[in-house]
Amino acid sequence: MSDVYDRVTELARRRGFIWPSSEIYGSVAGFFDYGPMGALLKRRIEEIWRDFYVIREGYYEIECPTIGVEPIYIASGHVKGFSDKMCQCLRCGEYLRADHAAAGAGVANAGAMPSEELACVLKTVPCPSCGEELGDVAVFAFNLMFQTSIGPGSQRKGYLRPETAQGIFTDFSRLLRFYRDRLPFGAVQVGKSYRNEISPRQGMIRLREFTQAEAEIFVHPARKDHPRFDRYASYRVPLLGIDQQTSGAAPVEVAMGEAVEEGIIANQYVAYYMALTHDLLVRIGVDGKRLRFRQHLQDERAHYAMDCWDAEVLSERFGWVELVGIADRTDYDLRAHSQASGTALTVFLPLETPRMERRRRIVPDMKVLGPRFRGNAKAVADALAAADPGPEGARVTVDGETHLIPPSLYQVREEEVEVRGEEVMPHVIEPSYGIDRMCYAVLEHAYAEEVVEGEVRRVLRFPPAVAPVRAAVFPLVNRDGLDGRAEEIHRELIGAGILAEYDDSGAIGRRYRRQDEVGTPFAITVDYTTMEDGTVTLRDRDSMAQVRVRREALIPALRSLIDGTASFASLSP
Amino acid sequence: MSDVYDRVTELARRRGFIWPSSEIYGSVAGFFDYGPMGALLKRRIEEIWRDFYVIREGYYEIECPTIGVEPIYIASGHVKGFSDKMCQCLRCGEYLRADHAAAGAGVANAGAMPSEELACVLKTVPCPSCGEELGDVAVFAFNLMFQTSIGPGSQRKGYLRPETAQGIFTDFSRLLRFYRDRLPFGAVQVGKSYRNEISPRQGMIRLREFTQAEAEIFVHPARKDHPRFDRYASYRVPLLGIDQQTSGAAPVEVAMGEAVEEGIIANQYVAYYMALTHDLLVRIGVDGKRLRFRQHLQDERAHYAMDCWDAEVLSERFGWVELVGIADRTDYDLRAHSQASGTALTVFLPLETPRMERRRRIVPDMKVLGPRFRGNAKAVADALAAADPGPEGARVTVDGETHLIPPSLYQVREEEVEVRGEEVMPHVIEPSYGIDRMCYAVLEHAYAEEVVEGEVRRVLRFPPAVAPVRAAVFPLVNRDGLDGRAEEIHRELIGAGILAEYDDSGAIGRRYRRQDEVGTPFAITVDYTTMEDGTVTLRDRDSMAQVRVRREALIPALRSLIDGTASFASLSP
Repeated sequence: MSDVYDRVTELARRRGFIWPSSEIYGSVAGFFDYGPMGALLKRRIEEIWRDFYVIREGYYEIECPTIGVEPIYIASGHVKGFSDKMCQCLRCGEYLRADHAAAGAGVANAGAMPSEELACVLKTVPCPSCGEELGDVAVFAFNLMFQTSIGPGSQRKGYLRPETAQGIFTDFSRLLRFYRDRLPFGAVQVGKSYRNEISPRQGMIRLREFTQAEAEIFVHPARKDHPRFDRYASYRVPLLGIDQQTSGAAPVEVAMGEAVEEGIIANQYVAYYMALTHDLLVRIGVDGKRLRFRQHLQDERAHYAMDCWDAEVLSERFGWVELVGIADRTDYDLRAHSQASGTALTVFLPLETPRMERRRRIVPDMKVLGPRFRGNAKAVADALAAADPGPEGARVTVDGETHLIPPSLYQVREEEVEVRGEEVMPHVIEPSYGIDRMCYAVLEHAYAEEVVEGEVRRVLRFPPAVAPVRAAVFPLVNRDGLDGRAEEIHRELIGAGILAEYDDSGAIGRRYRRQDEVGTPFAITVDYTTMEDGTVTLRDRDSMAQVRVRREALIPALRSLIDGTASFASLSP
Repeated sequence: MSDVYDRVTELARRRGFIWPSSEIYGSVAGFFDYGPMGALLKRRIEEIWRDFYVIREGYYEIECPTIGVEPIYIASGHVKGFSDKMCQCLRCGEYLRADHAAAGAGVANAGAMPSEELACVLKTVPCPSCGEELGDVAVFAFNLMFQTSIGPGSQRKGYLRPETAQGIFTDFSRLLRFYRDRLPFGAVQVGKSYRNEISPRQGMIRLREFTQAEAEIFVHPARKDHPRFDRYASYRVPLLGIDQQTSGAAPVEVAMGEAVEEGIIANQYVAYYMALTHDLLVRIGVDGKRLRFRQHLQDERAHYAMDCWDAEVLSERFGWVELVGIADRTDYDLRAHSQASGTALTVFLPLETPRMERRRRIVPDMKVLGPRFRGNAKAVADALAAADPGPEGARVTVDGETHLIPPSLYQVREEEVEVRGEEVMPHVIEPSYGIDRMCYAVLEHAYAEEVVEGEVRRVLRFPPAVAPVRAAVFPLVNRDGLDGRAEEIHRELIGAGILAEYDDSGAIGRRYRRQDEVGTPFAITVDYTTMEDGTVTLRDRDSMAQVRVRREALIPALRSLIDGTASFASLSP
């Protein structure tokens, strides 16, 4: 029996949403093509994402290359640590992801096992490909970055980026100047990332080339209150915190203000973007009842992350699937790039009014120190300036040798100094979205079958804002001028920037079904009444209800239906 | 003295248009980052491109992976032929593009020379890097595709696509079904392509990773009249045809209808997309006086292309630069993929009314052939059916052996057969756009300096439709409620989806200059009159003229200024 995945996939192929890539040469796991309907769906989802992050939040988008040089990924830790554990079946030669093979045979907690332990448990596990026991397989780390070389003669090693985030971190200083040296600020990137999976299954869920939309928001480490937190303080989100996971409880709906106050979510920034993510996902058509936010457990959380939550959706075949991760990454990334590149990645934050601070200054008597320490005198004086002298004098270490400098050789002065500001290395809040998984989730949650007049009606119940085609225009019949009138209306919609399809072939019922399958929310039919009174019928995909609309009112009506400022019910006369 | 390139580049870096990539690790030639302003400019140009091709032409967009498997690029010819000629300086070790090194030393026609000839002329050419004569360098082909491997164990060779087009060709059958088996139809793709240049110079003009927007339009080989040719038949385009190039004449302005009739342009399809390209380039801000269409000469044209024209813009430093290529690629690509993959990439076009055709059928007498040829009888009969018999009989060859079958062993019947349609392999019309070069051309052509009140005003005169920021909002002073009112207006614009910046720092003149530099077309100032009568001043970037606009009229006014349905002059009271 086929499940929803099979039925959605069949429809998605047949109607031009998702196609196997380079099918005529045999497609390769982990790569998909977006057909005409899929590419539109994806772009509409990306546009809504941009509306939330770029227009409303004010975080500008940047665009970095997908190929990066090695030092970036050494600093970020990807060269060393971005890998999965792999083994190769000694019988059939198939490469396997070791933890998945073990988990598939019922081994608990395989994802967290070190290589030796995995090798041990795999001995009696059958190869998922040939069925023979794996026996004495070696388990080793396989780096998941695609590698290439830049220029001739393998001059420079290059990697296809494993995430878009690193481009934002390496542009930090430029961005800081762009935002005129103030905190907080954010930048986003929407684009391809790559992950050379060992043996990807699970269709659109596990891709080797995928689209991410990531925001990196740079905040003062001691000021993690979001300036517009009010907007989402009372917004309720289903949370599966560490507590619920430990006790096996169901998610609880909590208002974000409360979740921060009670310490369930680390700070307002993380909570704000969790709520915004919930808002956004429901807006694009994810079913709110199949959506939850799961907190990373201590042992699955990256060691540098302060708190991390995944937005997960329920898929019939794949269970709970992560769509979005929202993390407080602290200053891990900036610190790593600062150290590796030797560039200061800090913000100088001036105080509103400079503050006077009393500081103790140690002034060495060079007339005596000079002759005594000769070539080392300068080093001794510097060490002395930073020393913490006691009553017996100050101990300084130069070139591994410690000297006691008696109080007679320096003066201690108390001085007032002016402090104009502080150098701060910002923390990063990162909401990171997997656009392809979002597309799949929207497809699965939108998919419905129902029996109408004895026939199965397959329909994609997309919100109008993400529907690939906004409207279809039909002449009831291809004569008596109805077709000409319908073509005219079609051109008007196109002229107004509303993507519409014209269809005059087959019975009207069949034309409706064709549009239902690709989720077109509205259909306009030109009939004989149109020729008399200038009205057309406007049909709603979900209710299949129809109203007559005056032709002049059609474009404004469609616009407000698409942007969600009007509902179909409100149109009824 | 700095030229426009230097000045545009300085501004582009400082104000967040174009940044060197991964600068903190030393940037690599051929890679650039789009900063906040640049990414917006680029996206707006892409959106206008989509408006022309997807919405108005009705060619749906698809999205294929950037990594492709080897068979695609063997079939397309890229594995064998996508290369530049390279040499390595024996003294300094620098890799050089051989034809560029020769051309740089004044060698004429270096681009068309075979490797041996280039090696010969390079002997006395100084290395552009170290200045020593190149001497006995070897010249060899360097393939320009970035290579990688997919999955563990180098299981599969992969290439980063050198053009987006191949994804559309390999999806041909799926697309044909999507368009319900009719011609013409088209598909487009906008995305990254890669070219591992030997030693790219020329900034944004020669990139190793770049964005293309390509349309592949599949047409009947015998029907190259564009159905909407009327739209551009009298549209005049400056043409530098083969004739003008041969005689050294200047481009001539010709209407597209005339150019096709006179055989200057091969067909209506090519001419239509040349005019559309002119229309589009001028719309995004390319200066029409620095734009021409140059026809490929016989020897530079790909051997399969029937006709090819480049849209070129004049750049102060780089001379005439190709932005767009428009070619009739015939059935070269589909034929190549069809042969390599063993898939029929044809369209069955039914005749409106099936036609009866007389055909001769040869019916073998199996009673005699069977016993005579035994195991070969079937093969002989098949060969006989396809044979062209003469009076003495029919000659057939089976397994390398030729037999003469006498007329007594078969009957020749004349039959009427019904022909329902024809199998056609479409031709491809391809307009191919280099988005990054378009961004650079728009920047250079928009750049202006002028002296205003004794100070240099730097301004980017973008058309409002491509300007990154649409409007800026200023309070004249930060007191008496002016700032609050200005913030309110800023929020209203954002809410209406109009990307606007709020700026309250520094003198008003300085704020205007800041916006002029990034090309913001309109600035709104809240002053004391605003508090009295609810009007604001709206300032036009180019004329620096100001009008007072009622606050309620602001959003509709900006919308029509941005989409070009109103001019600033028309707003004046």
